[in-house]
Amino acid sequence: MRIETICTGDELLTGLTSDTNSRFFQEQLLDLTGLTVRRCVVVGDVRADIVAALDEAAGRCDAVLVSGGLGPTSDDITAACAAEAAGVELVESPEVLAHLTARARARGMTLTPNNLRQALVPRGAEVVANAEGSAPLIIQQRGGCTLFFVPGVPREYRHLVSAHVVPRLSARLTGAPVRVLKLLKVVGLGESQVDARITPLAYRHPRITFGYRTHPPENHLKLLAEAPTRAEALVALAAAEAEAREALGANCFGSGEDTLAGAALACLRERQERLALAESCTGGLVGALLTEVPGASEVLFGGVITYLDAAKLLWAQVPQALVAREGAVSRPVALAMARGVREATGVAWSLSVTGFAGPDGGTPEEPVGAVYVAVVGPGVEAVERHFFPGDRERVRRFAAHAALDLLRRTAQAQR
Amino acid sequence: MRIETICTGDELLTGLTSDTNSRFFQEQLLDLTGLTVRRCVVVGDVRADIVAALDEAAGRCDAVLVSGGLGPTSDDITAACAAEAAGVELVESPEVLAHLTARARARGMTLTPNNLRQALVPRGAEVVANAEGSAPLIIQQRGGCTLFFVPGVPREYRHLVSAHVVPRLSARLTGAPVRVLKLLKVVGLGESQVDARITPLAYRHPRITFGYRTHPPENHLKLLAEAPTRAEALVALAAAEAEAREALGANCFGSGEDTLAGAALACLRERQERLALAESCTGGLVGALLTEVPGASEVLFGGVITYLDAAKLLWAQVPQALVAREGAVSRPVALAMARGVREATGVAWSLSVTGFAGPDGGTPEEPVGAVYVAVVGPGVEAVERHFFPGDRERVRRFAAHAALDLLRRTAQAQR
Repeated sequence: MRIETICTGDELLTGLTSDTNSRFFQEQLLDLTGLTVRRCVVVGDVRADIVAALDEAAGRCDAVLVSGGLGPTSDDITAACAAEAAGVELVESPEVLAHLTARARARGMTLTPNNLRQALVPRGAEVVANAEGSAPLIIQQRGGCTLFFVPGVPREYRHLVSAHVVPRLSARLTGAPVRVLKLLKVVGLGESQVDARITPLAYRHPRITFGYRTHPPENHLKLLAEAPTRAEALVALAAAEAEAREALGANCFGSGEDTLAGAALACLRERQERLALAESCTGGLVGALLTEVPGASEVLFGGVITYLDAAKLLWAQVPQALVAREGAVSRPVALAMARGVREATGVAWSLSVTGFAGPDGGTPEEPVGAVYVAVVGPGVEAVERHFFPGDRERVRRFAAHAALDLLRRTAQAQR
Repeated sequence: MRIETICTGDELLTGLTSDTNSRFFQEQLLDLTGLTVRRCVVVGDVRADIVAALDEAAGRCDAVLVSGGLGPTSDDITAACAAEAAGVELVESPEVLAHLTARARARGMTLTPNNLRQALVPRGAEVVANAEGSAPLIIQQRGGCTLFFVPGVPREYRHLVSAHVVPRLSARLTGAPVRVLKLLKVVGLGESQVDARITPLAYRHPRITFGYRTHPPENHLKLLAEAPTRAEALVALAAAEAEAREALGANCFGSGEDTLAGAALACLRERQERLALAESCTGGLVGALLTEVPGASEVLFGGVITYLDAAKLLWAQVPQALVAREGAVSRPVALAMARGVREATGVAWSLSVTGFAGPDGGTPEEPVGAVYVAVVGPGVEAVERHFFPGDRERVRRFAAHAALDLLRRTAQAQR
């Protein structure tokens, strides 16, 4: 089954935003059907470009997922393009109109003329009400190709794709080879280093395609298994995964949707010990990453964002004299921050970060990009210096990951 | 000039990552040349699909930017596809080999056989050394179309695109109509509400195309000016922008790359007053957003992540009895957190957030999605309750933005 996607929207071509929706569809599709999208096309809100993309995809695909341009405003023209490409007119759908009216009533609002545009669909198309929004899922059959039209708003897109589009595609499959994907996540090894460790074992796994993804500061190893049945694919995958994990050692911190923050939290949760943070240059980013993980409150006591020196004194008892003598970005200050916040909170573990994220700041000895991370735990203290080239965003992201990885490695070694 | 992009990589089709590079190119291109990319195509690491995409694009475009698949590993096949599509062979480039050798020497490493693959380029192609990495920029001419091949690693992509690709495209333009884009950023108004305010003034601005983008919790208004010269486009844009800002009022917090965090910081920077934070459910996200902004240290003293009740007591002096009586997610606790951290730090402004982000937690009165934000400043205190439906990530993002917007509106009203 050949499947492609078309995303519409000037904002996807003028630098205002990126298409992040397609990833959700791709992942759902692969997990549930073993199918991979063959091509993703992005075009602007230009009638001729949308119609051409619809015609090309309909001519070569079994299914096409089209997103965006179903909103209430005048630049939302996808339904009209779908009608034009198929040579039919737009008609008002009574089901969609009823859905729009009920939605507006529930919110105490009245429908504006532009809201009514969302009830217009190509003649002959099927519609499915959108539980998360106003624009419906529109399903149009053109010859052997089924086109699914969904809104581009991520919440609505995700709902319609997982509740309706992927299940319908899955229902069509019979006897195709099954593909199953697994991702191993690695930190502290470059892409070439991962490749060098994996290449020697690849020949033993003919059903597995090995691939790589650089997602700095992480590197991800992709294992794609292909077999006649899901059971055989899973067996091949399990064997390859076991060997790959062995080869990657402690640098592999997880798989699939695992995050470094989640792995670090899991180490402490196992020990039933708590964590406190002291962040300078990351300004709360380590805390934000940790609290993205549901259940973080089982481990995280809290933390302090010691952005100014006065904050380092107030919340982490770092003496002003130490900062003056050693510099705010230094090994002794990183350690003092971690010790201070651990003392103040009485928890088992503390983690600190201090660095120069730029664009200003830095000293001749410690330029922008210099970062110290420190961890203090039961019977253990460790500080590391890192240097991360790049812009402010990159330095901060790498610094936060370095802190989380130091915590993870230190806690694992203590087991 | 018709320009398209092709991004290659299985990871872009299997849900592992999204193409975020193209956005950078689009923006640079639009800013510097007024040109818009007409189509972006994503294909996997499949030889036939890459070759087909190259042929199609070369047949209809003046220029194509191709990214990804230039790395050292065996799944990097873009250079080979470029050679195949053009009907030439791959040859070793002495310039690239010299660059690779010098880079390895500077890092104290030796070149591995897979590193040497990066020196192979299609015969006849021009190469430009990559100051940020190993893979070069490859420039291939096919008939009237110039194909630019760059690596997919974001830092290298950005460097080569801004230093070489966009300047070369810009140099080719003569007398084309100029397009200039401006984005106004709005918070607290829905897309339909923005449309309803803008539509009445649109007829007075024939050179401007108005468009909309929903980026929850923000809505963005796009003003695209088209005129024979840049000067005329800028005049038309300025007139439209002034009227649009008037129509949007205080809900418009900025334009272009402005962020809500940056707008909030600017209000306090103007007053030369400092800010302290007390975050519960956002766990550092407000701090992370504020410290993304260069120069945040002129305003931000620091903050506390009061994830557990004990942390609320320790760092924000919130009495355990108040939490027990009112609940951790309540108006009095939000206000107590803000008052407590302001008192402890002695700064002029404080901002707090407490809420249930889910998936667990919540009470019958305050379910998952309930969030209180509070601000305390000179002579002013304010608390707001919000309810944000959706998952943990969405609740936290909306909560952080609600806090920043409360600070911005309160500080602006105090002027």
